Amino acid sequence: MGILRINTKEKNYKFEEPSGDLAGLGGRALTSKMILDEVPATSHPLSKFNKLVFAPGLLAGSPAASSGRLSAGAKSPLTGGIKESNSGGLVAQKLARLGIGAIVLEDKPEGDGYSMIVVKKDSVEILSADEYVGKGTYEVMETLWSKYGKNTGLLCIGQAGEQCLKAASIQQADMNGRPGRALGRGGLGAVMGSKKIKAIVIDDSDASRLAMKDKEAFKAANKRWVQMLKEHPVSGEGLPALGTAVLVNVVNEAGGFPTKNFREGRWEHAQDISGEKVAENIEARGGVTTEGCHPGCTIKCSNVYNDKDGKVLTTGFEYETIWAMGAHTLIRDIDDIAMLDRLCDDFGLDTIETGVALGIAMEGGMLEWGDGKGAIELLKKVGTKAYEGKILGSGAKFVGDTLGIDRVPVVKNQSLPAYDPRIVKGVGVTYATTPMGADHTAGYGVTANILGVGGNIDGLKKAGNVELSQGLQIATAALDAAGLCIFVAFAVLDNEDGVQTIVDMLNAQYGLSLTGDDVVALGKSILNNEKEFNKKAGFTKLDDQLPEMFNEELPPQNKTWDFSVDELQKTLDF
Amino acid sequence: MGILRINTKEKNYKFEEPSGDLAGLGGRALTSKMILDEVPATSHPLSKFNKLVFAPGLLAGSPAASSGRLSAGAKSPLTGGIKESNSGGLVAQKLARLGIGAIVLEDKPEGDGYSMIVVKKDSVEILSADEYVGKGTYEVMETLWSKYGKNTGLLCIGQAGEQCLKAASIQQADMNGRPGRALGRGGLGAVMGSKKIKAIVIDDSDASRLAMKDKEAFKAANKRWVQMLKEHPVSGEGLPALGTAVLVNVVNEAGGFPTKNFREGRWEHAQDISGEKVAENIEARGGVTTEGCHPGCTIKCSNVYNDKDGKVLTTGFEYETIWAMGAHTLIRDIDDIAMLDRLCDDFGLDTIETGVALGIAMEGGMLEWGDGKGAIELLKKVGTKAYEGKILGSGAKFVGDTLGIDRVPVVKNQSLPAYDPRIVKGVGVTYATTPMGADHTAGYGVTANILGVGGNIDGLKKAGNVELSQGLQIATAALDAAGLCIFVAFAVLDNEDGVQTIVDMLNAQYGLSLTGDDVVALGKSILNNEKEFNKKAGFTKLDDQLPEMFNEELPPQNKTWDFSVDELQKTLDF
Repeated sequence: MGILRINTKEKNYKFEEPSGDLAGLGGRALTSKMILDEVPATSHPLSKFNKLVFAPGLLAGSPAASSGRLSAGAKSPLTGGIKESNSGGLVAQKLARLGIGAIVLEDKPEGDGYSMIVVKKDSVEILSADEYVGKGTYEVMETLWSKYGKNTGLLCIGQAGEQCLKAASIQQADMNGRPGRALGRGGLGAVMGSKKIKAIVIDDSDASRLAMKDKEAFKAANKRWVQMLKEHPVSGEGLPALGTAVLVNVVNEAGGFPTKNFREGRWEHAQDISGEKVAENIEARGGVTTEGCHPGCTIKCSNVYNDKDGKVLTTGFEYETIWAMGAHTLIRDIDDIAMLDRLCDDFGLDTIETGVALGIAMEGGMLEWGDGKGAIELLKKVGTKAYEGKILGSGAKFVGDTLGIDRVPVVKNQSLPAYDPRIVKGVGVTYATTPMGADHTAGYGVTANILGVGGNIDGLKKAGNVELSQGLQIATAALDAAGLCIFVAFAVLDNEDGVQTIVDMLNAQYGLSLTGDDVVALGKSILNNEKEFNKKAGFTKLDDQLPEMFNEELPPQNKTWDFSVDELQKTLDF
Repeated sequence: MGILRINTKEKNYKFEEPSGDLAGLGGRALTSKMILDEVPATSHPLSKFNKLVFAPGLLAGSPAASSGRLSAGAKSPLTGGIKESNSGGLVAQKLARLGIGAIVLEDKPEGDGYSMIVVKKDSVEILSADEYVGKGTYEVMETLWSKYGKNTGLLCIGQAGEQCLKAASIQQADMNGRPGRALGRGGLGAVMGSKKIKAIVIDDSDASRLAMKDKEAFKAANKRWVQMLKEHPVSGEGLPALGTAVLVNVVNEAGGFPTKNFREGRWEHAQDISGEKVAENIEARGGVTTEGCHPGCTIKCSNVYNDKDGKVLTTGFEYETIWAMGAHTLIRDIDDIAMLDRLCDDFGLDTIETGVALGIAMEGGMLEWGDGKGAIELLKKVGTKAYEGKILGSGAKFVGDTLGIDRVPVVKNQSLPAYDPRIVKGVGVTYATTPMGADHTAGYGVTANILGVGGNIDGLKKAGNVELSQGLQIATAALDAAGLCIFVAFAVLDNEDGVQTIVDMLNAQYGLSLTGDDVVALGKSILNNEKEFNKKAGFTKLDDQLPEMFNEELPPQNKTWDFSVDELQKTLDF
């Protein structure tokens, strides 16, 4: 799997074979190692010294279910630390089939011109993208699909990335060519924007299928894998039926649904924005409740949400987005929330960061609490490149700094997502300690704290939650290297042969003889690389904690955040 | 000297006698010790946990020349570290005569109401200041002078502090009741704003003169002190004649005058903004070239600068301001620069931070380079509380982050001042290592590098400059505790009995038997306290360096910044 290095200043490229430490790595393992080795940790994230690495996971391109994740890595403009962000879509599979283990964007051009990159079986082109500048991702993707055919995977940035805003995402086309998937967190779209790359098109036409060392063994393992995913109540029933928004009522009932900037843990209007409500509207208006983000997905947690006239309003309408734009801001109208989601996708903005930022804008009087129409108007200013838009698109901490607000829910400058850490302490430990900045996907303790998956650990108490987060962070890092979706974790945690089945697929694909221990070791090494980068960037244990606002009691459970800095440090101490 | 603690939420106060570690401290020694001891280092600078401490120096209120400095200390909203900022004016002297060693603003009110504090000989009042909200410091100070009489010292914030902007200053009235002096750096005005204190009035009517343990000894020491200050060519001639702007031509000639955001070290139009030009205009239009900022000053570096119609345009028009608004931004019209200075004073903004931020706004296309009128219009938006104003008033790093600019000259988020660190390496070492964030006053290596004061050390080479900065930082910390103006340093460095004369005055005033070694120990202990706070706030040695833009060669001397992190760490290692 070759590494394709693109010099964005010189507009040339070269292929190289990964060697030494990089050989055999994929996904997050590869991006984090390359960023650690090649980016000076104290450099400015928007400087020529930063790099943006895209890497498919190790199982990408294979028939393995839920193996379509693409990782992107860089020094984050939002956190100032190392970042890996991943999404489903078609790019990872197509890169793998083209034999490309990573695309690395290097250096930085001068002047205003934008480029786009088109990768095909026998060619790499770096073309002018000036005609797409200033346009949203919906329009750009539609144009690229009609131009390059529907057999392509697409990545692009919107106006947020062009402005190098700290909450800028990189959007990835879903199976319908819409920007429904996002490499969302940490502002990687700003890094892409700083390198003046508007879009990347991956066309794997004529590429041969992925070589497989042991076809039969792979087939057998994948069969068990699919069975496991389908039989689990979360990945086999809950997620396909209601998407991730199934969690609204569940987390609200638990009292861990952060409301009005983390002042309450339960919202009286939660049902207005619940997965059930979303499904009801889809039912009534047309749309799709159950859609995969790439071929081979059996979980199909994505959806297509139409407006009252039956026209597509947004896609990939997820729990965390609905929470951030909804309970956090007190916006009750699910259609307003869907419009905010669409605008974020179109401008290329992380929905969690932007939703939390809207709440801080309300905290600071820029908007009234619950004003959905006002939030839409404010968000639209990102598209016009107005200064209010720049502020909002720079994330919650930035909005708080602009308005003089001291009550801002961030770790390492990144917004906390949709699970209150006082009530779901397992994920709270992850927020505090992951090298990524507050991120639920880095170690999703909601499993054992609320869903009863992988055991039961009380999310209201400290006991066991450091260990829970540690195990999950290690496992997740390994999953992110394999390119597997985080939603396989439910089945993996609840099946004794879960990890072994993944190992079997890897061994069959690459002709290896890995064990479960190797997977754990891989996860640890990824985390250690990330911790090392952050240390070299100036982070200390003081950065691994929640802000002081979480010392407040959260009704109705009336719990506080009560871990000490040193207790938290044990999480990634291995 | 009692400590006056004011609870800004409860609107009550108490006096306490300083005890233990605090006894006998003044100025920066007292503010930094209190912040270290009383403010949780990781708390948000705008939260109720931060405190704002005002403390006169140890010699304040005495007849000692140049002893009118008032220190303010807090956790800085700009740097996130500890901050001491000081200015001349009348407040320090009046506090000392009232027997007040510090005023401490604590806690934080809810709601929108502002207060002001009026301290008299036998009373402390906490009054509503709502009538002053939204008003600039010129108007507020004029009103307060007419209301409370001209025997008062005044501190107040402008619209910038009200908005809690990171570049907000606290303005102090000069001897004419104008806001010509500023506790400028580090955003302390935002801390005052967060506590909703608009103004502080200190009236020492009927206060007795300062008790002096040994009047005759004090008189003798002060006589020698005045002689020393008057005989030195810098404090006796250069500064009184042309003010601090005397440096424009000197530093430009040396090639250390940072031009167009630190791209060149010499500006062809420097003479248009020189001290000579300022003096020429004052001569022609009326105004004052030579004015002290408090009674008893013999250096009188301040001035009153009139517009073409002979009306006062600005006061305290200083070298660093003129550089920041001028060569850094390529604005050539000295009257535009004076207007920018006036607006900063009026809104309560640090002129260095704001000038550097204007240059970054130009870097990012918000303004054209050299557009003085455009800069004035943009700056006026701070007064209207528009979003562009909030961005600009939040400092250079914030403007750079908003606009996606990676070439921003800051250390610990604070803008570098007017001496290029590649050419004046002694001050460059100070920028990198002082706990204050980039600050020339913390260890003014310009002395031996350019002015030939206190010896000659080549500013173009590394040798000797770490040692130079170390010695100056220790001495300056001690001067800031004594409440002496930094401009006494020229005479102190060039006279063998310089330090001893200060010690003599302290001993005579307090009946002590300090030695020069005690002064050095005091300076070290202040710096150690500040380093300790910053460490507890999460700073590491990686924060003690210049950004990567200084690896570029600076024409015409073509020098780079070439100190390693570990070389720099030796500066404050004692």
